[in-house]
Amino acid sequence: MTDSAQLTGVVPPLVTPFTPEYDVDTASLARLIQYQLTGGVDGVFVLGTSGEGTFLTDEQRQVVLETTVAEVAGQVPVLAGVIDTSTARAGAHLSAALKAGVDAVVATAPFYAATHPAEIEQHFTRLATIAGDVPMYAYDIPPRVGTKLSSSLMISLGERGIIAGVKDSSGQETSLRQLVLDRRDAGLTGFAIMTGSELTVDSALAFGVDGVVPGLGNVDPSGYVRLFDAASAGDAATARAEQDRLFRLFEIITVADRSRMGASSAALGAFKAGLYLLGVIDCPLTAFPSIPLNDGEIAAIRPLLDRAGLH
Amino acid sequence: MTDSAQLTGVVPPLVTPFTPEYDVDTASLARLIQYQLTGGVDGVFVLGTSGEGTFLTDEQRQVVLETTVAEVAGQVPVLAGVIDTSTARAGAHLSAALKAGVDAVVATAPFYAATHPAEIEQHFTRLATIAGDVPMYAYDIPPRVGTKLSSSLMISLGERGIIAGVKDSSGQETSLRQLVLDRRDAGLTGFAIMTGSELTVDSALAFGVDGVVPGLGNVDPSGYVRLFDAASAGDAATARAEQDRLFRLFEIITVADRSRMGASSAALGAFKAGLYLLGVIDCPLTAFPSIPLNDGEIAAIRPLLDRAGLH
Amino acid sequence: MTDSAQLTGVVPPLVTPFTPEYDVDTASLARLIQYQLTGGVDGVFVLGTSGEGTFLTDEQRQVVLETTVAEVAGQVPVLAGVIDTSTARAGAHLSAALKAGVDAVVATAPFYAATHPAEIEQHFTRLATIAGDVPMYAYDIPPRVGTKLSSSLMISLGERGIIAGVKDSSGQETSLRQLVLDRRDAGLTGFAIMTGSELTVDSALAFGVDGVVPGLGNVDPSGYVRLFDAASAGDAATARAEQDRLFRLFEIITVADRSRMGASSAALGAFKAGLYLLGVIDCPLTAFPSIPLNDGEIAAIRPLLDRAGLH
Amino acid sequence: MTDSAQLTGVVPPLVTPFTPEYDVDTASLARLIQYQLTGGVDGVFVLGTSGEGTFLTDEQRQVVLETTVAEVAGQVPVLAGVIDTSTARAGAHLSAALKAGVDAVVATAPFYAATHPAEIEQHFTRLATIAGDVPMYAYDIPPRVGTKLSSSLMISLGERGIIAGVKDSSGQETSLRQLVLDRRDAGLTGFAIMTGSELTVDSALAFGVDGVVPGLGNVDPSGYVRLFDAASAGDAATARAEQDRLFRLFEIITVADRSRMGASSAALGAFKAGLYLLGVIDCPLTAFPSIPLNDGEIAAIRPLLDRAGLH
Repeated sequence: MTDSAQLTGVVPPLVTPFTPEYDVDTASLARLIQYQLTGGVDGVFVLGTSGEGTFLTDEQRQVVLETTVAEVAGQVPVLAGVIDTSTARAGAHLSAALKAGVDAVVATAPFYAATHPAEIEQHFTRLATIAGDVPMYAYDIPPRVGTKLSSSLMISLGERGIIAGVKDSSGQETSLRQLVLDRRDAGLTGFAIMTGSELTVDSALAFGVDGVVPGLGNVDPSGYVRLFDAASAGDAATARAEQDRLFRLFEIITVADRSRMGASSAALGAFKAGLYLLGVIDCPLTAFPSIPLNDGEIAAIRPLLDRAGLH
Repeated sequence: MTDSAQLTGVVPPLVTPFTPEYDVDTASLARLIQYQLTGGVDGVFVLGTSGEGTFLTDEQRQVVLETTVAEVAGQVPVLAGVIDTSTARAGAHLSAALKAGVDAVVATAPFYAATHPAEIEQHFTRLATIAGDVPMYAYDIPPRVGTKLSSSLMISLGERGIIAGVKDSSGQETSLRQLVLDRRDAGLTGFAIMTGSELTVDSALAFGVDGVVPGLGNVDPSGYVRLFDAASAGDAATARAEQDRLFRLFEIITVADRSRMGASSAALGAFKAGLYLLGVIDCPLTAFPSIPLNDGEIAAIRPLLDRAGLH
Repeated sequence: MTDSAQLTGVVPPLVTPFTPEYDVDTASLARLIQYQLTGGVDGVFVLGTSGEGTFLTDEQRQVVLETTVAEVAGQVPVLAGVIDTSTARAGAHLSAALKAGVDAVVATAPFYAATHPAEIEQHFTRLATIAGDVPMYAYDIPPRVGTKLSSSLMISLGERGIIAGVKDSSGQETSLRQLVLDRRDAGLTGFAIMTGSELTVDSALAFGVDGVVPGLGNVDPSGYVRLFDAASAGDAATARAEQDRLFRLFEIITVADRSRMGASSAALGAFKAGLYLLGVIDCPLTAFPSIPLNDGEIAAIRPLLDRAGLH
Repeated sequence: MTDSAQLTGVVPPLVTPFTPEYDVDTASLARLIQYQLTGGVDGVFVLGTSGEGTFLTDEQRQVVLETTVAEVAGQVPVLAGVIDTSTARAGAHLSAALKAGVDAVVATAPFYAATHPAEIEQHFTRLATIAGDVPMYAYDIPPRVGTKLSSSLMISLGERGIIAGVKDSSGQETSLRQLVLDRRDAGLTGFAIMTGSELTVDSALAFGVDGVVPGLGNVDPSGYVRLFDAASAGDAATARAEQDRLFRLFEIITVADRSRMGASSAALGAFKAGLYLLGVIDCPLTAFPSIPLNDGEIAAIRPLLDRAGLH
């Protein structure tokens, strides 16, 4: 990706496979990347929320970055999450990602401390000076960071060349649509709007979003590629049918017993269990201290894969 | 502090002074520590929420730890926050803090990812193996980490020797009281319960809490020491009068224009402005990207210090 | 509407016009109804959230019901909100609405007291015995009542003939889509799914929703009818363009100074001001104790109407 | 109570006993009132949250009011909740309460619609014109109505004679303490501050609150009277011991299976089950559509009553 190309299409946020000893499983990660490339994805995003980036040590993050850049080998852009509590800490991750040779970075607002839009603006502005020519995307994920990124701030940062677009995981369709309209009315070009809401992709593409960063795309990249292609071709019926199938596949995240584990563990554990059952990765563990799915839960995911036509 | 001593009294969570270039100002930090020791505090807590620990790079954290351990020189215990998104990342901070020679550590639940009590239990259990003989306190601060630490989990971790107590910044008086009652009914000894709610300290001490970690204690350590001493001596009227005075002093956090900055910036900026006006630190800046108080706001804090008898 | 007809199309939730003395302005209400019928709406919904039903006395509610039933005169179905804190209180409103001759009723979950799905199920089941043959719709509006109505409960109530459909004002597109899929998979017929999210109607219609209950439809019923007709005809581009125009028109709710009034007052005040400027109603007051828009705010709505082509 | 007397002491919010057919059980209500008077309470509060006032029809409310006024017969003040969604609806309840001869009324902010402090101010101001010489208390219960009543608004309404005090069920000790300090600094007299937080009464009385409105006081009025008397006499140790005992008694609300019912049902059901087991009321049903405690749950409350010395 050169910095003049605008991000578009399907860019799954890759999970990070672990060994039973909680080391990064580079062989499984390489297979996952090949599975994605074979599926036809337009990019991969590592060290995001699905990638459990906030769980990893700096050393583990480095392994993920190097493995991914090497395995992808320039076939599609590699995006890296640089998500941390403050500008200084995210900036350190950003420098490491640049050194590893990624094509773009993705940063949230600061968190833990309560923040204000003026502070978030300073955060992205400072990070942009570190990123230099490498595109940076703002990652809007209020349930995790406690702040919603406003459309007006995003457009303003885009106009000043500080960000190259937004990954919207707010789940707020109205605000996403406002961002699309505001981009149009501002005449802003080269500014990508990607949705992280994997269950409403046909709708988002129909009202002008450029692509999707689907966690479920780990398990079924081809499905999302077919959905995107149908929507791009103006075939709304096929896009909807594909989305509906993926909607049902997403029910794998409801298999785990939520009285035993958190929501993140249940969802990411299901994605990893799916990849494990499909033979892509060797071990379905999620990052410590997440509670893993048990054998029965993993087995219960199999029929849901079958129903979706995944074998 | 040996690990048999139970934490008690006034343990302010020290702010981290910066230079105008956002370096840690070690000279100001040293003066702040002397101001606290002169005020009669029973310990100091660095790299907590008030210490802006989540804003600092690993290198800056190291400077704070080394400066503090050297300046305190064993006169009171030094507690260090090891607050980060995951067990692995908090564990790295913990190791660094041990190496720097702190007397105890303070850890929150993991955050950013959604967590479950069973996962939080694994988090503290793993951290305790790193801490070894150094006491670890659980830091309950749901507005920042999205999870409330239950009394039953805290007591259970205490009984198994995993934590040496709790710092409660939940602001939920009923749950704090339950923790005190549950500790009593469990016959649990050597387990400290400290409140982080600086405006209701007399109440908390009256129902059995052991001490306080007051952000406002940065500005007025002697006031909190007098409050604690009065409460310990059973002089409820004096304790209440001191608390009421400190309640009004806390209004310094309302001086900053909240349409310009976040809640953290307004509160910590006020503490630092107070210390700056009292001549303790050289520069009132809060961590980047926090918006600083302007000159007018800093000036407006002076009369509130005067009213509280601080010169 | 007979109870075999399924609700569909555009069914605006009518505002309740007041005189300057806060009486129901029946002449303005009659004009509003004619404005809607001329606009081509498929039904009208009175005493809902936009209708400020929870502000009105029983006597005022009666005036609204009787005026509406008389003015509509059977041309389209009249739906009436029977929204109150408990089953007994909603039931009394329901009886009154039946007596006034409405065609259907709309009920939320109980509120003020915290409720449980099993209790909500009993609530609707009891209300259905009062409604008899008159269709009842469940109104899902979690920000107001504190509870989300689950798809499984809604489908179950539909299968048992207790409700004839759902009005979804949850703003949660994923859950709305799940309801549509669950209806399909259950083979449930005669069960209407209407969205109350007036800014994403083209999307909702595209994935299978039957119609819309748009607050903004008070001001521009023809626009929503054109949007619905285009979507029904499979003309996604026209539907989207109409939705985008209405999205911008909705900005009238941002005109009022939110430091002076609540969100409800700002939104409903804008709808009423629009109708006042268009000559449909005589007075833009919202229900007491809502703060009204001032003259400057009302004037600022005029150019937004002009931009949307409303004169 | 004349309007010059300031409310103080223990004023339990009475539950409303029902027959198995969900009629108000006036005989049980009369026995409950005698149980309270014998316990030494300083007033009774009917039709509040514990009284399930928002569940009752206007006719049932009338029965409660008349029964209570007759049974109390002037021995202590009778307060009546006039809680409803709007000023007009609360005003109708207020008029009915006045006609029934209550001594004071208690009103929340409006709810369902989002409100603003300026609107809440108009709400109380209008209600005061209906109340006339009868004292009105503002009821601060943000979890139910979605709005926090600020200390500044409450003090301002007190200074203008609009409210005679506040019942604080916010559970926010800091804001309650601020109200007490603001009252003192304003020199405001004849303005009662009552806490609805039944588990921290000794603390609240120690920092200047005038009394308590304890839901648990339905079951153990004498306990709260002893607690109040000890606190008034400056015997903090006895007050704390009594509060600790009541804290443990409050565990009766945890007996019910929360996967079957809502929080309100579990708590009120426990209070009613306690009264039923103590022979005060005939039937432990909560208002429809609340799920009732089952026999096993009711039986499990017995040992908790025994442990607290209630037989």
